[in-house]
Amino acid sequence: MTWTLARRAERLNPSTIREILKITERPGIISLAGGLPSADTFPVQAMAEATARVLRDTPREALQYAASEGFAPLREWVAAELSSSQGLRVDAGRVLITTGSQQGLDLVGKVLLDPGSAVAVERPTYLGALQAFAPYEPAFVDVGGDEEGPTVEGLQAARGARFLYLLPNFQNPSGRCLSAARREALAEALQRQSLPLVEDNPYGDLWFDAPPPPPLSAQLGEQAVYLGSFSKVLAPGLRLGYVVAPEALYPKLLQAKQAADLHTPGFNQRVVHEVIKDRFLDRHVPTIRARYKAQRDAMQEALLQHLPAGCRWSMPVGGMFFWVTLPDGLDATALLPRAVEAGVAYVPGATFFASGPQQHTLRLSFVTVAPDAIRDGVARLGRVLKEAL
Amino acid sequence: MTWTLARRAERLNPSTIREILKITERPGIISLAGGLPSADTFPVQAMAEATARVLRDTPREALQYAASEGFAPLREWVAAELSSSQGLRVDAGRVLITTGSQQGLDLVGKVLLDPGSAVAVERPTYLGALQAFAPYEPAFVDVGGDEEGPTVEGLQAARGARFLYLLPNFQNPSGRCLSAARREALAEALQRQSLPLVEDNPYGDLWFDAPPPPPLSAQLGEQAVYLGSFSKVLAPGLRLGYVVAPEALYPKLLQAKQAADLHTPGFNQRVVHEVIKDRFLDRHVPTIRARYKAQRDAMQEALLQHLPAGCRWSMPVGGMFFWVTLPDGLDATALLPRAVEAGVAYVPGATFFASGPQQHTLRLSFVTVAPDAIRDGVARLGRVLKEAL
Repeated sequence: MTWTLARRAERLNPSTIREILKITERPGIISLAGGLPSADTFPVQAMAEATARVLRDTPREALQYAASEGFAPLREWVAAELSSSQGLRVDAGRVLITTGSQQGLDLVGKVLLDPGSAVAVERPTYLGALQAFAPYEPAFVDVGGDEEGPTVEGLQAARGARFLYLLPNFQNPSGRCLSAARREALAEALQRQSLPLVEDNPYGDLWFDAPPPPPLSAQLGEQAVYLGSFSKVLAPGLRLGYVVAPEALYPKLLQAKQAADLHTPGFNQRVVHEVIKDRFLDRHVPTIRARYKAQRDAMQEALLQHLPAGCRWSMPVGGMFFWVTLPDGLDATALLPRAVEAGVAYVPGATFFASGPQQHTLRLSFVTVAPDAIRDGVARLGRVLKEAL
Repeated sequence: MTWTLARRAERLNPSTIREILKITERPGIISLAGGLPSADTFPVQAMAEATARVLRDTPREALQYAASEGFAPLREWVAAELSSSQGLRVDAGRVLITTGSQQGLDLVGKVLLDPGSAVAVERPTYLGALQAFAPYEPAFVDVGGDEEGPTVEGLQAARGARFLYLLPNFQNPSGRCLSAARREALAEALQRQSLPLVEDNPYGDLWFDAPPPPPLSAQLGEQAVYLGSFSKVLAPGLRLGYVVAPEALYPKLLQAKQAADLHTPGFNQRVVHEVIKDRFLDRHVPTIRARYKAQRDAMQEALLQHLPAGCRWSMPVGGMFFWVTLPDGLDATALLPRAVEAGVAYVPGATFFASGPQQHTLRLSFVTVAPDAIRDGVARLGRVLKEAL
């Protein structure tokens, strides 16, 4: 008895990060690997009150099958929030609630990618997007860039692609944030090239000193799909994200959503709406920013103190990650077992490249563990690197 | 600016049922259309207590990112339950928790179907499965059968298919339940033909007088994928289902799951486990059975009283649906607007066929509304049919 697999199954592979996360569950290891929000930021009390209210006031609706588009008041909240905080003019009718923004990426791939379709991505780019798109068998095309992100010249390589996939703010993994000037230049280039944009913004609210400029989607209108998430500002275990799609795509994304899981749990949507409807995030998100900024500072200080000469990084002004470039000759993938033995974990940078991986890069998360552990973890990493040199 | 869609997007279409459901939300219409469990069966109190406990005892874990496989104690519960109640020997390591069993169907399609792959289905079959598989561009092949379901002879048509998709118990839409003898004969034929089975069992617990025989998967071992759901025994708004997969498929289904939504909400998984862990369903499900049996009886009585001569149906012994065959010449799709005008809605049977739709069939749900409304709704339907004859 043999099962015959679809050809696309060859493009499905174990997630490097998830395999690393399993290792890091061993006691004694400080994990700077996974992009797990600090559990200290989860609004447990507000969640408890909201779930109690939802189950008291609308249990029959919250526990029943529901609309594939999502819970209408939550879609309206998203539209209003994007208008006021991101400068995006969004009609609630174009908001599709998804089971985490990862599902948004899957649906985008399902609706837009044929085998061999070109998809333009950054170097490095978000691993989860590569994994979501890969089963649809696209050809990934790297877009050229500089320290600040993709450049207009770099976009030339993307000609003919189905879309450019871009994280504008505090990119995962590089941490970089596109300047207003770069956004404007890229948006204009995308318009000239008639190249659609899939803009993924899970980290935009996690700025430390000043909010980032508006997303490129604000300039691109119907030429952009925009993805957002509640994972970083509330809690990832609820699996709530959203897609804002142009008229040309919304019906197909909706039908793909129906086929994929009928709808995102109505219970979760109603609980989250109950938590946030009275501007809870205005009070809550600043506490996350303050915490992560302090942790960012702790990591910056520790990196300066412990990393050997020749290591390079930019201090992120928001988000969750430092991206470290090691001296030539060091291979972060090869060094990981030694780091784990020394009691610290990171994600090798190579995993974030569609092709031509930079083996001398690694990603460090500063949000999951507290400053003391950050300092200890970076000190351990420093020792491993110095030994290797 | 034009978006280029993937070829598979042509296979995505609005769900007939969901469009009908929108109509039936108009006041005054009795809907016998949607397969919505009775909200009276939702265990609201147990849910409220369980959510409070989960958020008190394990909030950091419940709200954090979690394993793609699912919450380990819930996977163990599923394995134990399937062993004791379904005669399936299941290792918890082969259980994948999904965002509703609809997602299980999507993942099965993603991992097993290439464009043009044959998929064998019943006549009629579950619409949601057709919708989940369709974007992977298979060729649906109808399997021949009789009143009781697919026959061994009918399976001949399935030669070379990637799998047979089958609902063994109280099928949606036909309501029929396969006999033990038919299951045995079909399982043997599947083994002879080396034809894999995807067995979907959302309704198996909703029996009225006696439990159905064990699923075919119990005889087929590694030749079967088995899907189950908490939607019908707890509440659909939680979106919790599961797939039990053979060793040859589990890793690929897991990777497809990671790519699709990382994991099913851990919050929901922990709440459901908290509700059911002390054999809650042993007390709860019998109350659902008793309710649905009474509603089945009310519908059977009303059908006998109100439907014109020439209508045929079998009384279901479990599940949620009556499947009615109208006298020749009546078209259930064409009659629907008149029925809605008369204040009753159903689902035209044509929507449940991969090809060659039987226009003179329709599906009635007896679980959503109470006996009085069932009687009124069937009376209205009877008047519409008599006028049409």
